[in-house]
Amino acid sequence: MKVTVSRKAHFNAAHRLYRKDWSHEKNDEVFGKCNNPNFHGHNYELTVSVTGNIDQETGYVIDMKVLKDIIKNEVEDAFDHKNLNVEVPAFKDLNPTTENIAVVIYNKIKPKLDGELDLEITLYETPRNFVTYSGS
Amino acid sequence: MKVTVSRKAHFNAAHRLYRKDWSHEKNDEVFGKCNNPNFHGHNYELTVSVTGNIDQETGYVIDMKVLKDIIKNEVEDAFDHKNLNVEVPAFKDLNPTTENIAVVIYNKIKPKLDGELDLEITLYETPRNFVTYSGS
Amino acid sequence: MKVTVSRKAHFNAAHRLYRKDWSHEKNDEVFGKCNNPNFHGHNYELTVSVTGNIDQETGYVIDMKVLKDIIKNEVEDAFDHKNLNVEVPAFKDLNPTTENIAVVIYNKIKPKLDGELDLEITLYETPRNFVTYSGS
Amino acid sequence: MKVTVSRKAHFNAAHRLYRKDWSHEKNDEVFGKCNNPNFHGHNYELTVSVTGNIDQETGYVIDMKVLKDIIKNEVEDAFDHKNLNVEVPAFKDLNPTTENIAVVIYNKIKPKLDGELDLEITLYETPRNFVTYSGS
Amino acid sequence: MKVTVSRKAHFNAAHRLYRKDWSHEKNDEVFGKCNNPNFHGHNYELTVSVTGNIDQETGYVIDMKVLKDIIKNEVEDAFDHKNLNVEVPAFKDLNPTTENIAVVIYNKIKPKLDGELDLEITLYETPRNFVTYSGS
Amino acid sequence: MKVTVSRKAHFNAAHRLYRKDWSHEKNDEVFGKCNNPNFHGHNYELTVSVTGNIDQETGYVIDMKVLKDIIKNEVEDAFDHKNLNVEVPAFKDLNPTTENIAVVIYNKIKPKLDGELDLEITLYETPRNFVTYSGS
Repeated sequence: MKVTVSRKAHFNAAHRLYRKDWSHEKNDEVFGKCNNPNFHGHNYELTVSVTGNIDQETGYVIDMKVLKDIIKNEVEDAFDHKNLNVEVPAFKDLNPTTENIAVVIYNKIKPKLDGELDLEITLYETPRNFVTYSGS
Repeated sequence: MKVTVSRKAHFNAAHRLYRKDWSHEKNDEVFGKCNNPNFHGHNYELTVSVTGNIDQETGYVIDMKVLKDIIKNEVEDAFDHKNLNVEVPAFKDLNPTTENIAVVIYNKIKPKLDGELDLEITLYETPRNFVTYSGS
Repeated sequence: MKVTVSRKAHFNAAHRLYRKDWSHEKNDEVFGKCNNPNFHGHNYELTVSVTGNIDQETGYVIDMKVLKDIIKNEVEDAFDHKNLNVEVPAFKDLNPTTENIAVVIYNKIKPKLDGELDLEITLYETPRNFVTYSGS
Repeated sequence: MKVTVSRKAHFNAAHRLYRKDWSHEKNDEVFGKCNNPNFHGHNYELTVSVTGNIDQETGYVIDMKVLKDIIKNEVEDAFDHKNLNVEVPAFKDLNPTTENIAVVIYNKIKPKLDGELDLEITLYETPRNFVTYSGS
Repeated sequence: MKVTVSRKAHFNAAHRLYRKDWSHEKNDEVFGKCNNPNFHGHNYELTVSVTGNIDQETGYVIDMKVLKDIIKNEVEDAFDHKNLNVEVPAFKDLNPTTENIAVVIYNKIKPKLDGELDLEITLYETPRNFVTYSGS
Repeated sequence: MKVTVSRKAHFNAAHRLYRKDWSHEKNDEVFGKCNNPNFHGHNYELTVSVTGNIDQETGYVIDMKVLKDIIKNEVEDAFDHKNLNVEVPAFKDLNPTTENIAVVIYNKIKPKLDGELDLEITLYETPRNFVTYSGS
């Protein structure tokens, strides 16, 4: 019996969309006002979904307290109240689009889970825009 | 790396559920108060989800501004503040159930996307009722 | 000890904003696409708030089941799945703007409450637009 | 054309997480404050999603009134304002974790649907924690 | 310049509405299924609103971290995952209606605030029912 | 008949809480991680509420399209995708706390409204923290 359990979390961060190897004109053309060199920011709303069998002893797929701690350690402590471009190493050479942030979060959380568990990341950049990534 | 990006939008419209080729009694029996001949209406909340590979240059699956414009042109301008039965050609001979509206929206947006992108439509008729269609 | 208790409800309806005594041009100028003669519609989300003293015996300001029934009788049964302009007598000569609908709802519910209770109506026409009326 | 139609519902209940065959210490260690012997409770928010072909006559996958009645009979009447451990037979020997409650709801609703319809249950225990189960 | 700052929090609890000094029949008549002797429960969503002047030095009415800690100490630690009737002394002889819970929360938080600050408590028992209390 | 009409809007921005005339240590002590010199950011959700008499001709307190345009000109165009500390003149010498941002928004919108209309600003910095200001 495969069940998916999901936990919501959130973090606030500043970011800017641009590529160092592009001209300012090209960055503006492609990324528009998201390329503001003084940065802008978001309240990122995160849902972490873990799929696996129900443990017949506990009735849990994963202990929600364990999942909550993984999210805190890997995502909230690393990203909250940070400037993603300047302070988060994963985005040193990677444009912090919502797509790329979701992939980075997936890659940070996946190794902390038991190998037989599947993972899906949903990340809202604004209440109207969000992305989903499940590792394939 | 396949990622799904989603954009929310909304439109308000009037509609009525009925079939011209059925008697008034049968329409009432099947569609109940949704068959009110004077129409009723909804705030339709729409989520358009597009799945594809992340462009390694931009970090985007699809530029959200492009997707926003497609939704505006194909759905909002065509449906918002309209009477679906009377003013939207797609429902001339098609009952505007939430299921059918979602399929019509899918069929309008899909040809505007690059061929390798997958599309899913989620449409809320009320905060408690919604449908999902992904073209198969 | 004055406490306010609130109950949410909702109804779907069609409507059109216009004045019979104005020309079509003037209606279009003032009400824009809300003047569509074929109607459009909304999911109206309603909050009914009642303020009064806590009954020391029951711990209630008003029994929520009683309030729920008043809302059902006065608002949901009268407005839900209706065309406000055509089928609701209160709007025969009154433009069904959100402001006016809120006042009509207030005037229908107030006489059903004990005289010492205060009433406030909050009505969402869309998730982004709403009005509040408390009778003064 | 396969479409998924979803209906939201909710119920309030008390519960406690524990196993009769475990010591109090082990229950506390595994279930923490969820093992409070005096119970605690939740507003469970439920989404029932049914997938099938659109009926070409009605434009429905399933009549939402039918689905609403199934949810009321099988879930709301059975669970609402109840103590899950004490009053709901399904949890006599089954720990009422969100995972297990979702499976029980699936098993109650599935036999009431036409055989060709697929079913998915999403159950929120809190606004931040939820599970999804689709029978496999 | 008076500004109101608000902080949301939540707690889960079990409760039962009844009066020890009433017969079972009268309790059932007045409180209906809320009088279930085995308890039921809710996710209580709380908003604590504090009104005062903006401190010209900090730009704060109250440091949100201070308010968050007061809510944690006075409400979350005292009520979360508890049976209100059995385990919370304030409800030993007080029926835990939403109205009374809001008043109890007000009376716990008010003395922890600077005297010139006003306080308002909003408490959701369910997504559809809530109460507001501001101490008068 | 005084009615309040409200319109929701939003903007994304980066900011940092600190005072130039304080030491880094004091800024850290008072503003904690909100004093990150590389900035962080938020999705600010704004509700603008205008109170006045219903115009008996139109049924409006204020034309929502007019209010929407005022919000766009005064707030969205000025703040969206901006760094509040660096790019918005109002915060050159004013700490951009949520309290101060709400007051600035009030002071920008109030002169654009007819003199007899009252104004209230509600501003969410995160889904859990918000402030309200009505000019007194």
